[in-house]
Amino acid sequence: MLYLGIDGGGTGCRAAIADAHGRILGRGSGGPANINSDPQGATVSILAAATAAMVEAGARPRDLCAVLGLAGGGMAQTAAAMQARLPFAQSRVVNDAVTATRGALGRADGILLAVGTGSVLAVQRDGRLRQYGGRGFLMGDEGSGAVLGRTLLGLAMRAGDGFAPDTPLLAGIRDEFGGFEGIIAFGNRATPAEFATLAPRLTGSDDPAARLILDEAAVQLSSAIGVLQDGQRLPVVCTGGLGPVYEARLQGDWPVRPALGDGVDGALSLARDGAAP
Amino acid sequence: MLYLGIDGGGTGCRAAIADAHGRILGRGSGGPANINSDPQGATVSILAAATAAMVEAGARPRDLCAVLGLAGGGMAQTAAAMQARLPFAQSRVVNDAVTATRGALGRADGILLAVGTGSVLAVQRDGRLRQYGGRGFLMGDEGSGAVLGRTLLGLAMRAGDGFAPDTPLLAGIRDEFGGFEGIIAFGNRATPAEFATLAPRLTGSDDPAARLILDEAAVQLSSAIGVLQDGQRLPVVCTGGLGPVYEARLQGDWPVRPALGDGVDGALSLARDGAAP
Repeated sequence: MLYLGIDGGGTGCRAAIADAHGRILGRGSGGPANINSDPQGATVSILAAATAAMVEAGARPRDLCAVLGLAGGGMAQTAAAMQARLPFAQSRVVNDAVTATRGALGRADGILLAVGTGSVLAVQRDGRLRQYGGRGFLMGDEGSGAVLGRTLLGLAMRAGDGFAPDTPLLAGIRDEFGGFEGIIAFGNRATPAEFATLAPRLTGSDDPAARLILDEAAVQLSSAIGVLQDGQRLPVVCTGGLGPVYEARLQGDWPVRPALGDGVDGALSLARDGAAP
Repeated sequence: MLYLGIDGGGTGCRAAIADAHGRILGRGSGGPANINSDPQGATVSILAAATAAMVEAGARPRDLCAVLGLAGGGMAQTAAAMQARLPFAQSRVVNDAVTATRGALGRADGILLAVGTGSVLAVQRDGRLRQYGGRGFLMGDEGSGAVLGRTLLGLAMRAGDGFAPDTPLLAGIRDEFGGFEGIIAFGNRATPAEFATLAPRLTGSDDPAARLILDEAAVQLSSAIGVLQDGQRLPVVCTGGLGPVYEARLQGDWPVRPALGDGVDGALSLARDGAAP
């Protein structure tokens, strides 16, 4: 038996195949894999990533015991539907927070803050994992790339109305998008991943609006981590594309530690021990 | 020549036909008419409302000089496309804020706060109108029914995670929707008008979370009105389904006055004077 680990989020997905000793035999990657917002697209991305890894490893679907950590994988029905659709000998779909936590913390106690296109928090205590936050672009995903991008556009419009202080970044955004109408038109068609492409305007900037948006997001996430600590000072690991941004901002509040490995490592580890976390 | 006035928003649209003396000859109503978020549905709703009014008035499309105040009508391209599609002798599409302001204030100076499924602010000074805020469900529409509904669901989830104080209203929402998964599933498929159906849970409640959400929205809108007053104390008129809710809350801050008429009255008035406001 070989093991397939997949980590998929709103921006892309990655796959790796390993043997029983944990030796990596093949890797692959694919497009966005959020099974909640786009189940069909996620299936295509997952199979593309898995196929590339199978070709490199010389493996067939029936050789593989798979664990897939996917954005939206915490929705039970959606996860079951995806599992039924996959061609592997065994398939288990879990939320990407589960695989990210195993990858980042191994089996140790700690708190995971994973922030990419979406965001999620998870606490691992005594080998048990509980997930918090996240909940998607529309009503949750605090501090995520997609929410940061949307917040930037909304603030650019409010500043254009005189309801918030204007800054060079905000005025530049209005110019670039063609004013209010252009911003609204972008918002009507943009996916969360497309909103998230605006996040680097904030992270690489010392514009007052950029600092305000990021500081507010960091305060919100730090306060959520405080709730999850429940009086303890567990190590906090920040992962995802925006992990380093929050790592720097949370350093003073909490014992921030580097991740042991990534979500693919976590998925492979879960596939190899074949047990629920 | 007869005059057709139409007022359309995210929840429904209404039409009236009047003669040159302002006498109403027929009325009609139809479904949602947001030409930004759903141009095809808006066309159907508008023609349904107009047809009912034409039948009652015994009028044909070519008899009518029409002004339509529509949610999304401030988007120039979208408005032009809708105008080209309409069968009337003359058609002019404007933002619903324009017709609401004419209806509410006539030609007098003042500030309009229109809050239904969406929200918008407008200032009329010396016969010139300028619109602020609004900007749609995703990045604007502060205090609107749709945003209030989304805020309620997001807060219910954060409270369920322990990140915000829980209340009977929030716990009841989680129960009713089937927990986090049910709330997220609703959010994935709900239109702004469907989010707005939750607003009465807030306006009719003394739950602490309901009061918090409404108070924050009222503070945000009052502060925006302060910017628009620019040192004056112009009369403020609150219209739309949530108008009475904010009227009560803004009473202490600003000289709140009742509306002279509604958006259909405003559209008819604009159609009759055939001039831009």
